[in-house]
Amino acid sequence: MIIFYSTDVRGNLVYIKGEEHIHCTKVLRNKEGDTINVTDGRGKLYICRIEKISKSETSCFITGVEERMESDAKCAIAISPLKNPSRLEWFVEKAVEIGISEIYIFNSKRTERKSVNRDRLDKIIISAMKQSMNICLPYITFVNNFSDIFISIAKYEGKYIARCESDPPLLTEIRSKQESNIVLIGPEGDFTKDEADHAISHGFTVVSLGPSRLRTETAGIVALSMLKY
Amino acid sequence: MIIFYSTDVRGNLVYIKGEEHIHCTKVLRNKEGDTINVTDGRGKLYICRIEKISKSETSCFITGVEERMESDAKCAIAISPLKNPSRLEWFVEKAVEIGISEIYIFNSKRTERKSVNRDRLDKIIISAMKQSMNICLPYITFVNNFSDIFISIAKYEGKYIARCESDPPLLTEIRSKQESNIVLIGPEGDFTKDEADHAISHGFTVVSLGPSRLRTETAGIVALSMLKY
Repeated sequence: MIIFYSTDVRGNLVYIKGEEHIHCTKVLRNKEGDTINVTDGRGKLYICRIEKISKSETSCFITGVEERMESDAKCAIAISPLKNPSRLEWFVEKAVEIGISEIYIFNSKRTERKSVNRDRLDKIIISAMKQSMNICLPYITFVNNFSDIFISIAKYEGKYIARCESDPPLLTEIRSKQESNIVLIGPEGDFTKDEADHAISHGFTVVSLGPSRLRTETAGIVALSMLKY
Repeated sequence: MIIFYSTDVRGNLVYIKGEEHIHCTKVLRNKEGDTINVTDGRGKLYICRIEKISKSETSCFITGVEERMESDAKCAIAISPLKNPSRLEWFVEKAVEIGISEIYIFNSKRTERKSVNRDRLDKIIISAMKQSMNICLPYITFVNNFSDIFISIAKYEGKYIARCESDPPLLTEIRSKQESNIVLIGPEGDFTKDEADHAISHGFTVVSLGPSRLRTETAGIVALSMLKY
């Protein structure tokens, strides 16, 4: 089953544009009258009949709607950009497949590469959502300063910061299954002590992700798996 | 802390050759008299003093040994090669970081690419072991026919096969924490019914990895996380 993505829903009609339009009509060769599935990335799956295919868009008539509520137990990971951008992209793709609700990308003191290709990440998130048949598009938030992260995460009851130093409790041992959780993953070289103290002062608990020394992107996926399963 | 890898241990001496020798002497510029850490990949970490650096090898004198026993609860994943080889390489790197004991790579009916670059995978396993500070090198076994897999896995008490079809129990709900477990991950397009029945007849239980439709390499990492945490 293939799902297309469009947020342009007006009454009984959905309009598919850009790459999704090309993918639907040129790559997969859907024709007028065909039935396709379209999600708005907000929990709605529209069963549609293609009404008209123009050069720039595919117009569809909605014949049915399935609604899937996002679970209340949200899982979020805040992670720093990586020296090798493909490693962050890999993390984002896998995190969306596994079912992350929100991704924060922040610059911290030891972040070596401060810039990320947001368009690429947006495309990866959409294609991973479609590929994994999720119909809720995870939010991605870019935070320039590490401290700005604490502004927008009040909604998370469980707040954790993963650290290599010392020997904190394992995330799986202390995280609650019900609540919404967020885990901060440091850059290559980990958080500075000041950053960790700053997080702790905002109600974050220091946790371990196990005995192995994990790469940043692996730590992100391991933390997410620990929250989800 | 940097760990080098060598299996050439004779009495009180360890000989580092090939790329490890270059990495130790040319890249990291270690000199005679320096202290370095070397693992045999079998649970021993040798603290060594470099005795002699020749063109082709670094000879080290063992001044101390740390032994780390592998846990009895082994985690193994059997996975099929992927159309895009870099995705299998990602899986292998991440699985080693997370602490997999054994990887089986098998060809099944729907495997699209039958060949893998074994040398590349061996290099990835060694560098991921060093990077994650594990000193037990996971075994990797290549199996030409899917059915051959059942010959060599008697040591696993928990045997599971991940399938997309129907609605089997979640791996986390039925797997035991104590025992050694192996999970079979199918190729793009999943196992055929015959292959699944064949596995079931060999004592495998069909399991789910959750509601999302995961790519093969993601399914491998998720299954491993479910076994480990």
